[in-house]
Amino acid sequence: MKLLKEKIKQDGVVLSDSILKVDSFLNHQIDPVLMKEIGDEFVKRFQNEKITKILTIESSGISPAVMAGLNLGVNVIFARKRKSLTLVDELYTASVHSFTKNVTNEIAVSKRFINENDHVLVIDDFLANGQAALGLLDIVEQAGASVAGIGIVIEKAFQDGGKLLRNKGIRVESLAEIEKLDNGQVIFKEEVMA
Amino acid sequence: MKLLKEKIKQDGVVLSDSILKVDSFLNHQIDPVLMKEIGDEFVKRFQNEKITKILTIESSGISPAVMAGLNLGVNVIFARKRKSLTLVDELYTASVHSFTKNVTNEIAVSKRFINENDHVLVIDDFLANGQAALGLLDIVEQAGASVAGIGIVIEKAFQDGGKLLRNKGIRVESLAEIEKLDNGQVIFKEEVMA
Repeated sequence: MKLLKEKIKQDGVVLSDSILKVDSFLNHQIDPVLMKEIGDEFVKRFQNEKITKILTIESSGISPAVMAGLNLGVNVIFARKRKSLTLVDELYTASVHSFTKNVTNEIAVSKRFINENDHVLVIDDFLANGQAALGLLDIVEQAGASVAGIGIVIEKAFQDGGKLLRNKGIRVESLAEIEKLDNGQVIFKEEVMA
Repeated sequence: MKLLKEKIKQDGVVLSDSILKVDSFLNHQIDPVLMKEIGDEFVKRFQNEKITKILTIESSGISPAVMAGLNLGVNVIFARKRKSLTLVDELYTASVHSFTKNVTNEIAVSKRFINENDHVLVIDDFLANGQAALGLLDIVEQAGASVAGIGIVIEKAFQDGGKLLRNKGIRVESLAEIEKLDNGQVIFKEEVMA
Protein backbone atom coordinates (compact mmCIF):
# COMPACT_ATOMS: atom_id res chain seq x y z
CA MET A 1 0.00 0.00 0.00
CA LYS A 2 1.80 3.02 -1.39
CA LEU A 3 0.43 5.70 0.96
CA LEU A 4 1.36 3.64 4.02
CA LYS A 5 4.89 2.90 2.80
CA GLU A 6 5.46 6.59 2.09
CA LYS A 7 4.28 7.42 5.60
CA ILE A 8 6.62 4.79 7.09
CA LYS A 9 9.58 6.17 5.09
CA GLN A 10 8.71 9.71 6.11
CA ASP A 11 7.71 9.33 9.76
CA GLY A 12 8.96 5.94 10.94
CA VAL A 13 12.02 5.91 13.16
CA VAL A 14 14.42 2.97 12.94
CA LEU A 15 15.69 2.38 16.48
CA SER A 16 17.71 -0.76 15.74
CA ASP A 17 17.91 -3.51 13.12
CA SER A 18 14.71 -4.99 14.60
CA ILE A 19 12.75 -2.06 16.03
CA LEU A 20 10.76 0.41 13.94
CA LYS A 21 8.93 3.12 15.80
CA VAL A 22 5.71 4.32 14.17
CA ASP A 23 4.18 6.02 17.18
CA SER A 24 3.51 9.23 15.25
CA PHE A 25 0.69 7.69 13.20
CA LEU A 26 -0.13 4.13 14.32
CA ASN A 27 0.52 3.14 17.91
CA HIS A 28 0.46 6.21 20.10
CA GLN A 29 -0.55 9.12 17.93
CA ILE A 30 -3.02 7.91 15.28
CA ASP A 31 -3.67 9.38 11.84
CA PRO A 32 -7.40 8.60 11.42
CA VAL A 33 -7.47 9.41 7.70
CA LEU A 34 -4.64 6.94 7.06
CA MET A 35 -6.42 4.37 9.28
CA LYS A 36 -9.53 4.76 7.10
CA GLU A 37 -7.43 4.06 3.97
CA ILE A 38 -5.91 1.03 5.70
CA GLY A 39 -9.31 -0.30 6.77
CA ASP A 40 -10.65 0.12 3.23
CA GLU A 41 -7.61 -1.68 1.80
CA PHE A 42 -8.15 -4.67 4.12
CA VAL A 43 -11.78 -4.87 2.98
CA LYS A 44 -10.69 -4.75 -0.66
CA ARG A 45 -8.16 -7.53 -0.20
CA PHE A 46 -10.65 -9.80 1.57
CA GLN A 47 -13.66 -8.85 -0.56
CA ASN A 48 -14.33 -12.48 -1.57
CA GLU A 49 -14.75 -13.52 2.05
CA LYS A 50 -18.09 -13.26 3.85
CA ILE A 51 -16.68 -11.69 6.99
CA THR A 52 -19.06 -11.54 9.95
CA LYS A 53 -16.68 -10.34 12.68
CA ILE A 54 -13.30 -8.66 13.00
CA LEU A 55 -11.01 -9.67 15.85
CA THR A 56 -8.04 -7.60 17.02
CA ILE A 57 -6.07 -6.96 20.21
CA GLU A 58 -5.77 -3.84 22.33
CA SER A 59 -4.59 -1.17 21.82
CA SER A 60 -2.93 -0.45 18.47
CA GLY A 61 -5.00 -2.93 16.47
CA ILE A 62 -8.25 -1.14 17.33
CA SER A 63 -8.05 1.82 14.90
CA PRO A 64 -7.39 -0.13 11.67
CA ALA A 65 -9.87 -2.84 12.76
CA VAL A 66 -12.66 -0.40 13.50
CA MET A 67 -12.20 1.32 10.13
CA ALA A 68 -12.44 -2.03 8.33
CA GLY A 69 -15.52 -2.80 10.43
CA LEU A 70 -17.08 0.54 9.50
CA ASN A 71 -16.62 -0.26 5.81
CA LEU A 72 -18.13 -3.75 6.16
CA GLY A 73 -20.77 -2.87 8.73
CA VAL A 74 -19.65 -5.69 11.04
CA ASN A 75 -18.71 -5.63 14.71
CA VAL A 76 -15.11 -5.54 15.92
CA ILE A 77 -13.94 -7.37 19.04
CA PHE A 78 -10.69 -6.46 20.72
CA ALA A 79 -9.05 -9.11 22.86
CA ARG A 80 -8.18 -7.72 26.28
CA LYS A 81 -4.75 -8.26 27.78
CA ARG A 82 -6.04 -8.77 31.29
CA LYS A 83 -9.39 -9.37 32.88
CA SER A 84 -11.58 -6.51 33.95
CA LEU A 85 -13.96 -6.71 36.91
CA THR A 86 -16.87 -5.97 34.59
CA LEU A 87 -16.00 -8.95 32.37
CA VAL A 88 -17.18 -11.82 34.51
CA ASP A 89 -18.57 -14.04 31.75
CA GLU A 90 -16.91 -17.09 30.48
CA LEU A 91 -13.93 -16.23 28.35
CA TYR A 92 -11.84 -17.68 25.60
CA THR A 93 -8.23 -17.16 26.62
CA ALA A 94 -4.77 -17.63 25.11
CA SER A 95 -1.23 -16.78 26.17
CA VAL A 96 0.75 -14.30 24.07
CA HIS A 97 4.42 -13.56 24.56
CA SER A 98 5.69 -10.17 23.45
CA PHE A 99 9.40 -10.27 22.61
CA THR A 100 9.50 -6.47 22.34
CA LYS A 101 8.18 -5.94 25.84
CA ASN A 102 9.44 -9.25 27.21
CA VAL A 103 6.15 -10.08 28.92
CA THR A 104 3.60 -12.86 28.53
CA ASN A 105 0.01 -11.70 28.62
CA GLU A 106 -3.14 -13.67 28.92
CA ILE A 107 -5.54 -12.40 26.26
CA ALA A 108 -9.27 -12.89 26.63
CA VAL A 109 -12.43 -12.63 24.56
CA SER A 110 -15.94 -13.06 25.92
CA LYS A 111 -17.61 -16.21 24.59
CA ARG A 112 -20.72 -14.18 23.82
CA PHE A 113 -19.14 -12.42 20.85
CA ILE A 114 -17.78 -15.16 18.57
CA ASN A 115 -19.51 -18.41 17.72
CA GLU A 116 -19.37 -21.25 15.20
CA ASN A 117 -21.35 -19.29 12.61
CA ASP A 118 -18.74 -16.54 12.43
CA HIS A 119 -16.20 -16.03 9.67
CA VAL A 120 -13.53 -13.91 11.31
CA LEU A 121 -10.98 -11.49 9.89
CA VAL A 122 -8.07 -11.02 12.30
CA ILE A 123 -6.38 -7.60 12.16
CA ASP A 124 -3.28 -6.36 13.94
CA ASP A 125 -0.85 -3.47 13.63
CA PHE A 126 2.43 -5.46 13.52
CA LEU A 127 3.45 -8.98 12.55
CA ALA A 128 6.87 -9.97 13.85
CA ASN A 129 7.13 -13.33 15.62
CA GLY A 130 3.44 -14.00 15.11
CA GLN A 131 2.66 -14.61 18.76
CA ALA A 132 -0.29 -12.22 18.96
CA ALA A 133 -1.77 -13.56 15.70
CA LEU A 134 -1.43 -17.15 16.93
CA GLY A 135 -3.19 -16.24 20.16
CA LEU A 136 -6.06 -14.64 18.25
CA LEU A 137 -6.33 -17.65 15.90
CA ASP A 138 -6.41 -19.92 18.94
CA ILE A 139 -9.42 -17.95 20.22
CA VAL A 140 -11.21 -18.16 16.83
CA GLU A 141 -10.63 -21.93 16.87
CA GLN A 142 -11.92 -22.29 20.44
CA ALA A 143 -15.09 -20.51 19.31
CA GLY A 144 -15.52 -23.01 16.46
CA ALA A 145 -15.52 -20.11 13.99
CA SER A 146 -13.67 -20.01 10.65
CA VAL A 147 -10.80 -17.68 9.77
CA ALA A 148 -11.09 -15.46 6.69
CA GLY A 149 -7.45 -14.46 7.04
CA ILE A 150 -5.15 -12.05 8.79
CA GLY A 151 -4.74 -8.39 7.87
CA ILE A 152 -1.51 -6.81 9.07
CA VAL A 153 -0.54 -3.15 8.79
CA ILE A 154 3.25 -3.65 8.98
CA GLU A 155 4.98 -7.01 8.65
CA LYS A 156 8.60 -7.43 9.68
CA ALA A 157 9.30 -9.98 6.96
CA PHE A 158 12.76 -10.67 8.44
CA GLN A 159 11.11 -12.28 11.46
CA ASP A 160 9.35 -15.66 11.57
CA GLY A 161 5.68 -14.77 12.07
CA GLY A 162 4.63 -14.46 8.43
CA LYS A 163 6.19 -17.77 7.42
CA LEU A 164 4.73 -19.51 10.47
CA LEU A 165 1.19 -18.37 9.67
CA ARG A 166 1.35 -18.91 5.90
CA ASN A 167 2.75 -22.41 6.46
CA LYS A 168 -0.45 -23.16 8.37
CA GLY A 169 -2.36 -22.33 5.19
CA ILE A 170 -3.66 -19.04 6.54
CA ARG A 171 -3.97 -16.11 4.20
CA VAL A 172 -1.93 -13.17 5.48
CA GLU A 173 -2.29 -9.78 3.82
CA SER A 174 0.34 -7.28 4.97
CA LEU A 175 0.04 -3.73 3.70
CA ALA A 176 3.75 -2.99 4.15
CA GLU A 177 6.32 -5.80 4.21
CA ILE A 178 9.69 -4.77 5.60
CA GLU A 179 12.60 -6.82 4.28
CA LYS A 180 15.10 -5.23 6.61
CA LEU A 181 15.92 -2.28 8.82
CA ASP A 182 19.34 -1.26 7.67
CA ASN A 183 21.44 1.60 8.96
CA GLY A 184 18.45 3.67 9.95
CA GLN A 185 16.68 2.92 6.66
CA VAL A 186 13.47 0.96 6.06
CA ILE A 187 13.84 -1.41 3.09
CA PHE A 188 10.54 -2.84 1.80
CA LYS A 189 10.32 -6.28 0.23
CA GLU A 190 9.69 -5.12 -3.35
CA GLU A 191 12.69 -2.79 -3.15
CA VAL A 192 14.92 -5.81 -2.64
CA MET A 193 13.25 -7.79 -5.42
CA ALA A 194 13.40 -4.87 -7.88
CA MET B 1 -27.97 11.25 21.58
CA LYS B 2 -31.05 9.17 20.83
CA LEU B 3 -29.41 6.29 18.94
CA LEU B 4 -26.88 5.75 21.72
CA LYS B 5 -29.48 5.82 24.47
CA GLU B 6 -31.60 3.28 22.61
CA LYS B 7 -28.54 1.05 22.25
CA ILE B 8 -27.80 1.35 25.98
CA LYS B 9 -31.42 0.49 26.87
CA GLN B 10 -31.37 -2.45 24.45
CA ASP B 11 -27.90 -3.94 24.97
CA GLY B 12 -26.52 -2.50 28.22
CA VAL B 13 -26.49 -4.80 31.23
CA VAL B 14 -26.98 -3.30 34.69
CA LEU B 15 -24.75 -5.32 37.02
CA SER B 16 -25.34 -3.26 40.16
CA ASP B 17 -26.54 0.23 41.13
CA SER B 18 -23.16 1.58 39.96
CA ILE B 19 -21.98 -0.77 37.19
CA LEU B 20 -23.34 -0.73 33.65
CA LYS B 21 -21.83 -3.20 31.23
CA VAL B 22 -21.74 -2.05 27.61
CA ASP B 23 -19.16 -4.51 26.34
CA SER B 24 -21.36 -5.58 23.43
CA PHE B 25 -20.88 -2.29 21.55
CA LEU B 26 -18.37 -0.01 23.29
CA ASN B 27 -15.64 -1.54 25.40
CA HIS B 28 -14.96 -5.07 24.24
CA GLN B 29 -17.06 -5.66 21.16
CA ILE B 30 -17.32 -2.40 19.20
CA ASP B 31 -20.09 -1.29 16.85
CA PRO B 32 -18.13 0.80 14.33
CA VAL B 33 -21.22 2.35 12.72
CA LEU B 34 -22.42 3.60 16.11
CA MET B 35 -18.86 4.84 16.86
CA LYS B 36 -18.97 6.87 13.64
CA GLU B 37 -22.26 8.46 14.71
CA ILE B 38 -20.76 9.21 18.13
CA GLY B 39 -17.62 10.75 16.60
CA ASP B 40 -19.74 12.91 14.31
CA GLU B 41 -21.89 14.04 17.24
CA PHE B 42 -18.80 15.14 19.22
CA VAL B 43 -17.62 17.16 16.22
CA LYS B 44 -21.05 18.80 15.92
CA ARG B 45 -21.14 19.74 19.60
CA PHE B 46 -17.65 21.27 19.51
CA GLN B 47 -17.96 22.81 16.04
CA ASN B 48 -17.14 26.30 17.30
CA GLU B 49 -13.77 25.16 18.63
CA LYS B 50 -10.68 25.06 16.43
CA ILE B 51 -9.57 21.61 17.55
CA THR B 52 -6.04 20.60 16.49
CA LYS B 53 -5.66 17.32 18.43
CA ILE B 54 -7.83 14.75 20.14
CA LEU B 55 -6.57 13.10 23.32
CA THR B 56 -8.00 9.88 24.74
CA ILE B 57 -6.86 6.91 26.82
CA GLU B 58 -6.45 3.27 25.86
CA SER B 59 -8.38 1.18 25.11
CA SER B 60 -12.09 1.98 24.97
CA GLY B 61 -11.64 5.68 24.23
CA ILE B 62 -9.84 4.95 20.97
CA SER B 63 -12.80 4.09 18.73
CA PRO B 64 -14.97 7.15 19.40
CA ALA B 65 -11.87 9.39 19.38
CA VAL B 66 -10.60 8.10 16.05
CA MET B 67 -14.03 8.60 14.44
CA ALA B 68 -14.13 12.21 15.64
CA GLY B 69 -10.58 12.61 14.35
CA LEU B 70 -11.58 11.19 10.98
CA ASN B 71 -14.38 13.74 10.70
CA LEU B 72 -12.10 16.66 11.64
CA GLY B 73 -8.98 15.42 9.87
CA VAL B 74 -6.87 15.82 13.02
CA ASN B 75 -4.59 13.36 14.77
CA VAL B 76 -5.66 11.37 17.83
CA ILE B 77 -3.28 10.54 20.68
CA PHE B 78 -4.09 7.80 23.12
CA ALA B 79 -2.44 7.98 26.53
CA ARG B 80 -0.79 4.69 27.39
CA LYS B 81 -1.36 3.08 30.75
CA ARG B 82 2.23 1.89 31.09
CA LYS B 83 5.49 2.56 29.35
CA SER B 84 6.54 0.56 26.32
CA LEU B 85 10.17 -0.16 25.51
CA THR B 86 9.74 1.58 22.17
CA LEU B 87 8.61 4.78 23.89
CA VAL B 88 11.87 6.11 25.22
CA ASP B 89 11.24 9.81 24.65
CA GLU B 90 10.41 12.25 27.31
CA LEU B 91 6.86 11.81 28.48
CA TYR B 92 4.09 13.76 30.11
CA THR B 93 2.73 11.55 32.88
CA ALA B 94 -0.15 11.58 35.35
CA SER B 95 -1.58 9.13 37.88
CA VAL B 96 -5.10 7.81 37.35
CA HIS B 97 -6.97 5.75 39.89
CA SER B 98 -9.67 3.41 38.59
CA PHE B 99 -12.29 2.71 41.25
CA THR B 100 -13.86 0.00 39.07
CA LYS B 101 -10.64 -1.95 38.76
CA ASN B 102 -9.15 -0.69 42.04
CA VAL B 103 -5.76 0.06 40.49
CA THR B 104 -3.74 3.23 40.02
CA ASN B 105 -2.10 3.51 36.61
CA GLU B 106 0.52 5.88 35.43
CA ILE B 107 -0.65 7.30 32.10
CA ALA B 108 1.85 8.71 29.64
CA VAL B 109 1.90 10.78 26.46
CA SER B 110 5.00 11.53 24.42
CA LYS B 111 5.97 15.20 24.56
CA ARG B 112 6.37 15.21 20.79
CA PHE B 113 2.65 15.05 20.12
CA ILE B 114 1.10 17.92 22.07
CA ASN B 115 2.48 21.44 22.37
CA GLU B 116 1.46 24.94 23.37
CA ASN B 117 -0.12 25.63 19.97
CA ASP B 118 -2.62 22.80 20.34
CA HIS B 119 -6.31 23.14 21.18
CA VAL B 120 -7.21 19.72 22.50
CA LEU B 121 -10.51 17.86 22.65
CA VAL B 122 -10.42 15.14 25.31
CA ILE B 123 -12.61 12.09 24.60
CA ASP B 124 -13.36 9.09 26.78
CA ASP B 125 -15.91 6.30 26.90
CA PHE B 126 -17.10 6.73 30.51
CA LEU B 127 -17.21 9.55 33.03
CA ALA B 128 -17.73 8.39 36.60
CA ASN B 129 -15.38 9.79 39.24
CA GLY B 130 -13.53 11.83 36.64
CA GLN B 131 -10.10 10.45 37.47
CA ALA B 132 -9.15 9.56 33.87
CA ALA B 133 -10.38 12.92 32.57
CA LEU B 134 -8.42 14.79 35.26
CA GLY B 135 -5.28 12.86 34.32
CA LEU B 136 -5.74 13.74 30.65
CA LEU B 137 -6.37 17.42 31.50
CA ASP B 138 -3.21 17.39 33.60
CA ILE B 139 -1.26 16.22 30.55
CA VAL B 140 -2.80 18.92 28.31
CA GLU B 141 -1.82 21.51 30.93
CA GLN B 142 1.75 20.18 31.19
CA ALA B 143 2.00 20.58 27.41
CA GLY B 144 0.91 24.22 27.69
CA ALA B 145 -1.97 23.47 25.31
CA SER B 146 -5.56 24.69 25.68
CA VAL B 147 -8.60 22.49 26.30
CA ALA B 148 -11.56 22.68 23.91
CA GLY B 149 -13.61 20.51 26.22
CA ILE B 150 -14.35 16.93 27.11
CA GLY B 151 -16.51 14.59 25.06
CA ILE B 152 -17.91 11.62 26.98
CA VAL B 153 -19.90 8.73 25.54
CA ILE B 154 -21.64 7.71 28.79
CA GLU B 155 -21.72 9.82 31.95
CA LYS B 156 -22.75 8.30 35.25
CA ALA B 157 -24.33 11.53 36.44
CA PHE B 158 -24.85 10.00 39.91
CA GLN B 159 -21.10 10.04 40.48
CA ASP B 160 -18.92 13.10 41.09
CA GLY B 161 -16.82 13.39 37.92
CA GLY B 162 -19.15 15.60 35.88
CA LYS B 163 -19.65 18.11 38.68
CA LEU B 164 -15.93 18.16 39.45
CA LEU B 165 -14.99 18.97 35.85
CA ARG B 166 -17.79 21.48 35.20
CA ASN B 167 -16.93 23.31 38.43
CA LYS B 168 -13.46 23.85 36.97
CA GLY B 169 -15.13 25.70 34.09
CA ILE B 170 -14.52 22.92 31.61
CA ARG B 171 -17.13 22.19 29.01
CA VAL B 172 -18.26 18.57 29.27
CA GLU B 173 -20.49 17.11 26.55
CA SER B 174 -21.90 13.71 27.48
CA LEU B 175 -23.91 11.89 24.83
CA ALA B 176 -25.83 9.82 27.38
CA GLU B 177 -26.24 10.99 30.98
CA ILE B 178 -27.37 8.30 33.36
CA GLU B 179 -29.29 9.58 36.38
CA LYS B 180 -29.39 6.19 38.06
CA LEU B 181 -29.16 2.46 37.65
CA ASP B 182 -32.25 1.20 39.33
CA ASN B 183 -33.38 -2.39 39.72
CA GLY B 184 -31.69 -3.47 36.51
CA GLN B 185 -32.99 -0.44 34.60
CA VAL B 186 -31.04 2.46 33.11
CA ILE B 187 -32.71 5.80 33.89
CA PHE B 188 -31.41 8.73 31.83
CA LYS B 189 -31.32 12.28 33.18
CA GLU B 190 -34.12 13.65 31.00
CA GLU B 191 -36.38 10.79 32.00
CA VAL B 192 -36.20 11.96 35.61
CA MET B 193 -36.76 15.60 34.67
CA ALA B 194 -39.74 14.77 32.41
